[in-house]
Amino acid sequence: MEFTIDQVAQLLGGEVRGNGSEHVNMLARIQEATKGQITFLSNPKYESYIYTTQASAVIVNRDFVPRKALSTTLILVDNAYVSFTTLLEEYHKLMSFQKTGVEEPAFIGKDVAVGEGVYRGAFSYVGNNVKIGENVKIYPHVFIGDDVVIGNNTILHANVKVYAGTRIGSHCVIHAGAVIGSDGFGFAPREDGTYKAIPQMGHVVIEDHVSIGANTVIDCATLAGDATIIREGVKLDNLIQVAHNVEIGRHTVIAAQAGISGSSKIGAHCVIAGQVGVAGHLVVADKTSIGAQAGLLKSVTEEGQRIIGSPAFDKNEYFRSYAVFKRLSDLHHSLIDLQRKITELESKAESVTGGRAS
Amino acid sequence: MEFTIDQVAQLLGGEVRGNGSEHVNMLARIQEATKGQITFLSNPKYESYIYTTQASAVIVNRDFVPRKALSTTLILVDNAYVSFTTLLEEYHKLMSFQKTGVEEPAFIGKDVAVGEGVYRGAFSYVGNNVKIGENVKIYPHVFIGDDVVIGNNTILHANVKVYAGTRIGSHCVIHAGAVIGSDGFGFAPREDGTYKAIPQMGHVVIEDHVSIGANTVIDCATLAGDATIIREGVKLDNLIQVAHNVEIGRHTVIAAQAGISGSSKIGAHCVIAGQVGVAGHLVVADKTSIGAQAGLLKSVTEEGQRIIGSPAFDKNEYFRSYAVFKRLSDLHHSLIDLQRKITELESKAESVTGGRAS
Amino acid sequence: MEFTIDQVAQLLGGEVRGNGSEHVNMLARIQEATKGQITFLSNPKYESYIYTTQASAVIVNRDFVPRKALSTTLILVDNAYVSFTTLLEEYHKLMSFQKTGVEEPAFIGKDVAVGEGVYRGAFSYVGNNVKIGENVKIYPHVFIGDDVVIGNNTILHANVKVYAGTRIGSHCVIHAGAVIGSDGFGFAPREDGTYKAIPQMGHVVIEDHVSIGANTVIDCATLAGDATIIREGVKLDNLIQVAHNVEIGRHTVIAAQAGISGSSKIGAHCVIAGQVGVAGHLVVADKTSIGAQAGLLKSVTEEGQRIIGSPAFDKNEYFRSYAVFKRLSDLHHSLIDLQRKITELESKAESVTGGRAS
Repeated sequence: MEFTIDQVAQLLGGEVRGNGSEHVNMLARIQEATKGQITFLSNPKYESYIYTTQASAVIVNRDFVPRKALSTTLILVDNAYVSFTTLLEEYHKLMSFQKTGVEEPAFIGKDVAVGEGVYRGAFSYVGNNVKIGENVKIYPHVFIGDDVVIGNNTILHANVKVYAGTRIGSHCVIHAGAVIGSDGFGFAPREDGTYKAIPQMGHVVIEDHVSIGANTVIDCATLAGDATIIREGVKLDNLIQVAHNVEIGRHTVIAAQAGISGSSKIGAHCVIAGQVGVAGHLVVADKTSIGAQAGLLKSVTEEGQRIIGSPAFDKNEYFRSYAVFKRLSDLHHSLIDLQRKITELESKAESVTGGRAS
Repeated sequence: MEFTIDQVAQLLGGEVRGNGSEHVNMLARIQEATKGQITFLSNPKYESYIYTTQASAVIVNRDFVPRKALSTTLILVDNAYVSFTTLLEEYHKLMSFQKTGVEEPAFIGKDVAVGEGVYRGAFSYVGNNVKIGENVKIYPHVFIGDDVVIGNNTILHANVKVYAGTRIGSHCVIHAGAVIGSDGFGFAPREDGTYKAIPQMGHVVIEDHVSIGANTVIDCATLAGDATIIREGVKLDNLIQVAHNVEIGRHTVIAAQAGISGSSKIGAHCVIAGQVGVAGHLVVADKTSIGAQAGLLKSVTEEGQRIIGSPAFDKNEYFRSYAVFKRLSDLHHSLIDLQRKITELESKAESVTGGRAS
Repeated sequence: MEFTIDQVAQLLGGEVRGNGSEHVNMLARIQEATKGQITFLSNPKYESYIYTTQASAVIVNRDFVPRKALSTTLILVDNAYVSFTTLLEEYHKLMSFQKTGVEEPAFIGKDVAVGEGVYRGAFSYVGNNVKIGENVKIYPHVFIGDDVVIGNNTILHANVKVYAGTRIGSHCVIHAGAVIGSDGFGFAPREDGTYKAIPQMGHVVIEDHVSIGANTVIDCATLAGDATIIREGVKLDNLIQVAHNVEIGRHTVIAAQAGISGSSKIGAHCVIAGQVGVAGHLVVADKTSIGAQAGLLKSVTEEGQRIIGSPAFDKNEYFRSYAVFKRLSDLHHSLIDLQRKITELESKAESVTGGRAS
């Protein structure tokens, strides 16, 4: 996966100053870049590095005027930072979609439709009646149960486990060890204090452009026909729990180790921080921001609120209360002090008024 | 896996009104059911759907009297909801235990005893000297170490990992990615501030009718002969941590992302909510209910308590305190206000009594 | 893996009283040991067991004088407890490093260097250009991406997933289901409220003597050349989240279900309890102790502090505040009571001073 500096410049619409025929194959920060790598200079405070860098090429803004001699090749562009980001993305896409074909042994069931450019890694398992779109990358040890549908350009990293009946959209990335479609936690108490499992027969729908972190778990819905739904553009971090019949709205972002309990419906464009817990059967309005470790016990009906605490309430109020909490022992002593003073005042008042009455 | 409506009615002890020879193969809610599916009507508020449903059959109570023409077949039973639930369970059992035989390649060690009706999926691994009961379902990518014993009718979903020496009972369901028997977190500090691993040589015992969620982890006990024990009927949700030498009592239910630290002993019939943490070496009495995100730092000796908070204490008291906490800043200002007033009163009292003394 | 009692005594520098030629193959507690097992007596309160134990041998202190007849063989040593621990460790090492060779089918890419004594389990996957040190144990279903380097005597349990480019040191133990090198959670918001994935191109470096728990996740760094770093001797428990660009200092211990957000730098010799959350871009000084479920929102600059709470502050102060919190409703009522008394006092004072002024 090597390019010449000229090729990179062309991709970026940039201009080369130096040896454009040299090959580059990696991207790095200016402090650490070595030969064969390409880097960028955007923030003037890093300028000194450009005079000593070992990088083969540095992307710079068109107005950059070196103050010393340079041993590296320059690529002049309108916005060095944006160009570098573009390059990162292009490189990443190339790398991500590089693998194609089948590594044996790989298992494939009956009646499977497989698109062009698909990669199926060694020890991957694809069940019966599965539809796999174009350019889908199925890494080693991935398990795909029966009747699953996967859209185009989706990547399933090593050992992702997809239960039967799941539907996954296009342009999704699912990280290693994630579990999609496991049984929801549904148990009906019997009179003797034991529990009976409620069969979980629904499925999971993951729309397009969704990202799911490593070892995250998404349970299926309870009834056949129902789905736990992850809407378009949702980004889930690692080790998150999404229970049965949950719906997560479009472009909502959830940080690591958060948990959403059964049947709760999270709005669109929400931001849920790490280790947050959301109780079951709640509705959370669009654009709600829930702070780290918060515990949500009731629905949020108004859009755009910022909440924290367990149970969660308005974030500013929480921090005001917490500031007092930190000195709560002092406050308690002040109160005891006041009680003493009031008792004294009362006895004085008694003696004064008593004196007057005598 | 298709049945006629007549066959379903016979299973339920119900009576058919309509075409009993039609085939059905799925269960769904009345709002969503389509041809070939069977649904139910129990709650009168959904009655309108029965006149438009595409379902091939609807289970109804015997006393149901249609107010309009029906295009679906009815199955009349004593209790439509209970019958539907029964059907769900039967269907689920059929589906769960449908797979049998071996998908190659699958690895099996020496001296393995395998019961009737077992399924071993592709890429499953069974070590040496393992005993596998009847109808056990071992999905793809399951790892079973040496000397493991598994009872009848237990299901290990894709990629469950069972360390050597584990004992699993009958009628258990273990979901994808769960780890059973990993080393406990035992490290002895050395004088230089480094740590030495304490060998973890015990095992895990899982009794009958236990359910374990996806990506949950249960560590083995420390000493050989000792066990981390999950008693009969326990239900563990996803992403739970159960540390070494823990015992979880019969029919206790634990929600997602909770963690039980080493050597703690949880009683029977407890309910532990999501993201709860229990410290090490505690004893929790039977029927204790621990609220979401609580942190338990001391043992619970009396049965049937309901606790929450971090550290946890009585639930009602916690919520009373928390109600004040939410207005703690106001309370603080009230206190400052009182301090000012008392200072005023004191100075007045001084002037009064000062006046009297003069 | 059997030894005679004489061989065990020789290893421990101990003296045999009884039949040294008997074989032993397991270690157990004195209450539970059976024939063929070896146990120890250190605490006098367990002395009674030595007269009835079925164990083939008991390790005792040299000064132990039996008060009754014994049917077991004794091994006399200077410190029975220490000797037993030594034995545990030796036995554990033997067991852990017993497996060698390749179980087929196992996948291995091009240009892989494999050291002596390596075990590659069935269905394990090793990518291209990987370096595997001596005695490395790669259990079934392990995934090792391209360009990974693994030092000597490191154990990767079943189904560990190592993304491309990761570097793992010597004498490490990584438990089942752990994910090393998944993409960091990096998304740049677009103006329309959607998110763009920031390519994650860095890697993970794990130094020597590190232990990583089951289903724990360690994300890679963002930029190529950068690394998420786990320093020498670090011990991570199960289900922990370590985000991109984090550094965890030498010999720091982190308990289960804790999470460290992106770019935070944890010092050396810290102790982080279960379910702790650390926000992003913080620095935590060496020897900091963070209590269970704490949420760290700002850096800790001074060494050796003990903190707890969410947000976290001094542990003693937290518990002082929390003691008042538990009676906060009473405190609130006391305050209301004081307000009433003050109002009374004010009205009295008014009447007194009013009287005087008249």
